[in-house]
Amino acid sequence: MERARRTPMALWRNLWKVGRDDPRRAIHALKVGSALTLVSLLYLLEPLFEGLGKNAMWAVMTVVVVLEFTAGATLCKGFNRAVGTVFAGSLAFFIECIAEELGTVSRALFVGASVFFIGFAATYVRFIPIIKKNYDYGVLIFILTFNLITVSSFRVQNVIEIARDRLYTILIGCAICLFMSLFVFPNWSGEELHYSTADKLEALARSIEACVMEYFQEDMTIDQKSSRDTIKKGYRVVLDSKSVEESLALFASWEPRHSRLGYRYPWKQYVKLGAVLRHFAYTAVALHGCLESEIQTPQSVRMLFREPCTRVSREVSKVLRELASSIRNRQHCSPDVLFDHLHDALQALNSAIKSQPRLFLGTKNAQANSMIAAQTDQRSSSGAAALASVKTDISALLDFRTKRDQTERKTLKPTLSKIAMMSLEFSEALPFAAFASLLVEMAVRLDLIIDHVKELARDAHFKDCMEKHDIK
Amino acid sequence: MERARRTPMALWRNLWKVGRDDPRRAIHALKVGSALTLVSLLYLLEPLFEGLGKNAMWAVMTVVVVLEFTAGATLCKGFNRAVGTVFAGSLAFFIECIAEELGTVSRALFVGASVFFIGFAATYVRFIPIIKKNYDYGVLIFILTFNLITVSSFRVQNVIEIARDRLYTILIGCAICLFMSLFVFPNWSGEELHYSTADKLEALARSIEACVMEYFQEDMTIDQKSSRDTIKKGYRVVLDSKSVEESLALFASWEPRHSRLGYRYPWKQYVKLGAVLRHFAYTAVALHGCLESEIQTPQSVRMLFREPCTRVSREVSKVLRELASSIRNRQHCSPDVLFDHLHDALQALNSAIKSQPRLFLGTKNAQANSMIAAQTDQRSSSGAAALASVKTDISALLDFRTKRDQTERKTLKPTLSKIAMMSLEFSEALPFAAFASLLVEMAVRLDLIIDHVKELARDAHFKDCMEKHDIK
Repeated sequence: MERARRTPMALWRNLWKVGRDDPRRAIHALKVGSALTLVSLLYLLEPLFEGLGKNAMWAVMTVVVVLEFTAGATLCKGFNRAVGTVFAGSLAFFIECIAEELGTVSRALFVGASVFFIGFAATYVRFIPIIKKNYDYGVLIFILTFNLITVSSFRVQNVIEIARDRLYTILIGCAICLFMSLFVFPNWSGEELHYSTADKLEALARSIEACVMEYFQEDMTIDQKSSRDTIKKGYRVVLDSKSVEESLALFASWEPRHSRLGYRYPWKQYVKLGAVLRHFAYTAVALHGCLESEIQTPQSVRMLFREPCTRVSREVSKVLRELASSIRNRQHCSPDVLFDHLHDALQALNSAIKSQPRLFLGTKNAQANSMIAAQTDQRSSSGAAALASVKTDISALLDFRTKRDQTERKTLKPTLSKIAMMSLEFSEALPFAAFASLLVEMAVRLDLIIDHVKELARDAHFKDCMEKHDIK
Repeated sequence: MERARRTPMALWRNLWKVGRDDPRRAIHALKVGSALTLVSLLYLLEPLFEGLGKNAMWAVMTVVVVLEFTAGATLCKGFNRAVGTVFAGSLAFFIECIAEELGTVSRALFVGASVFFIGFAATYVRFIPIIKKNYDYGVLIFILTFNLITVSSFRVQNVIEIARDRLYTILIGCAICLFMSLFVFPNWSGEELHYSTADKLEALARSIEACVMEYFQEDMTIDQKSSRDTIKKGYRVVLDSKSVEESLALFASWEPRHSRLGYRYPWKQYVKLGAVLRHFAYTAVALHGCLESEIQTPQSVRMLFREPCTRVSREVSKVLRELASSIRNRQHCSPDVLFDHLHDALQALNSAIKSQPRLFLGTKNAQANSMIAAQTDQRSSSGAAALASVKTDISALLDFRTKRDQTERKTLKPTLSKIAMMSLEFSEALPFAAFASLLVEMAVRLDLIIDHVKELARDAHFKDCMEKHDIK
């Protein structure tokens, strides 16, 4: 009883959520409804029915199958359907011409053989990657139409008339679809691609900031779950975007909107930028891995580098946000100013690391100082170091177990080998070194992102941003 | 002329490659051809044509659309098509019953309104994630069939007969498809998923081995390109597998093959294992990033750790390969033995790092030794260290530029900021520390993979491998 009342509620909430997440979905559904009603008029109104006869069904079918969410996808499918139909029609007509000369039995054999061969060849061709990517639907329609025409022509005489009427109705269906998708609240694949790219840059910025913030957080209990969610969501958005992005770019290249400016809009640049962003995101994942790693540098050591690391992450995020807003507003950006800050931040991190010669191999300078520094240094940090080594040796197991509980993994019992690994006395600075190194790597990869955004800005003729310089 | 001769050659080579890469494609194309010929017989043979009339066209359409590459996909689509058709037919019949009572004009209005509303609602429902994933095609067929029946029933009287014949022909089409995909050289989604999982484990093993090998390679010119290809291919296979894997698991769950053993085969475990493998692959990408990083630990320092690092990577790969063969042969594996070796290898790496106290912060023991060791140590490695610092300070820029040329990046001119970053005197051990830390992280994540493979082995009732123990 309780469940019977809850199911419709859940369904209703689900339906509501789908529309709230993206109101364009509701609009699209309304568009499909209208298009179907429109195409039904071909049947419902007397005079139109007389003209087209039963073939009006093909218009209905076309609308159902071709009208897609974005304009580009509709154009792509409509084109595929039209071309596939025309090709199949021509080939079927050609085969029909040959078959007409033959007797009934040999004609049946000939038609059967041609159906087999064309079916085989077209299906095989669909496996070629370039066809699969761009024209899969067209080839499918080709097979379908060819078979329908060839086979039905075996019994019916006025094949050409049928084919012509069918083509007309399909064109009517395509026209309705194009009208609906291009002129009634159009959804552009290109725009979706454009804004999703900006979103991804911002998500990465959030992810990195949250990650570094949590790494240096002293009180481990506060809001850990929500911050990890931010981190994960940030890079997941980027990592999972590949196939969506590629199909959006494909559909965007069909959209007429930007071509009128006299150049082909560089949709491929978005795909390239997406690949670079994924490459950057792998570093973000590795950085996140530092948080979840079983072996941790003690907080006391981490705290020595809190300031410079946070600064680097802040600057990286700032550059990412700047790039995002540059794309969003279609303006050329000047991240060089920001990049200088990042450079300063990196230098600060470098000096911080150099100032702790006992943690890492020093450079020439540091080496000379290290012998002198060692004495004073040992006195100041001996407390922390002693604490730290106690922590790794004894409480590692305990620590590890509580951490496991926190992250809610399924295998609650750590395996024997893992405990053994934990009790390994790995140098404590090692994990932090990895963390710092990943931060630096990130800064380097950021440069690659900047290059690609600049390239995009150039190819897509973004506006200059004179006014922005003035504000600064 | 030259080009005209070359294009067909390239096409032919492309076609040949498609078949050679996976001969099942050619077989599938033959199957489609046969199925189409078979269904054409409905038309070509006199007695069958009398029975089914023009509706035989629906059988052709069903075969074209439903017959997919794997058995699971065909079953899933066939089920969707059948259920969608039945639902749509029932609803259309219901609407027809109501409409019959009305006058012509109000009937047209009623039919138009119902077409609009059903079109809207069904399209909207397609956006719900769970529907989109499992029943998208079914809903599409529902819309299509509903519209065709409702609209055509407006003019034709014997709607129920038409609907019945149509359903029969669709069922005949589905039957042919099922026969072809289940009994004639069937391709099982489940098997593809199974073996591709094993392949992925092996690809990761190759990738990691190649990566560590190259990191410690002294002669940088030998075979660098092919080894990088191995590395990239290895983790790309895993990273790009998400959507393919999910649809394979979905289709596999439709396949009847494994259900007869009395339990549901745990296809979801493969998806989970895939997610864990991707998680592992991110570390592989980060490890690869260490190779391509702009800031590098000099070879002289790296060589100190060559032996233990290579050993760790060898052991990790060995475990991965063992897991792969365990999956491939559907046998329970005993990676614990191997994991012990890995543990030893990690311990060796740990001692190697501890034996170089100047490189990293030592543990308690190492600290005591460090002051004594420093003197002797400095003497032995001073040459290398001096060399190294010269390298980073002066030749960094040059080095960087040649490296860029090697990797054939497009932006040949390094930006100013990058040069500035290069000349930063980052501690030389930092990048190596990251490398080592990633290796350790990898070993930890490997444990997670082992857990998941074990879970899979348990749920899928893999064989025990008694004989293997004997061999050892």
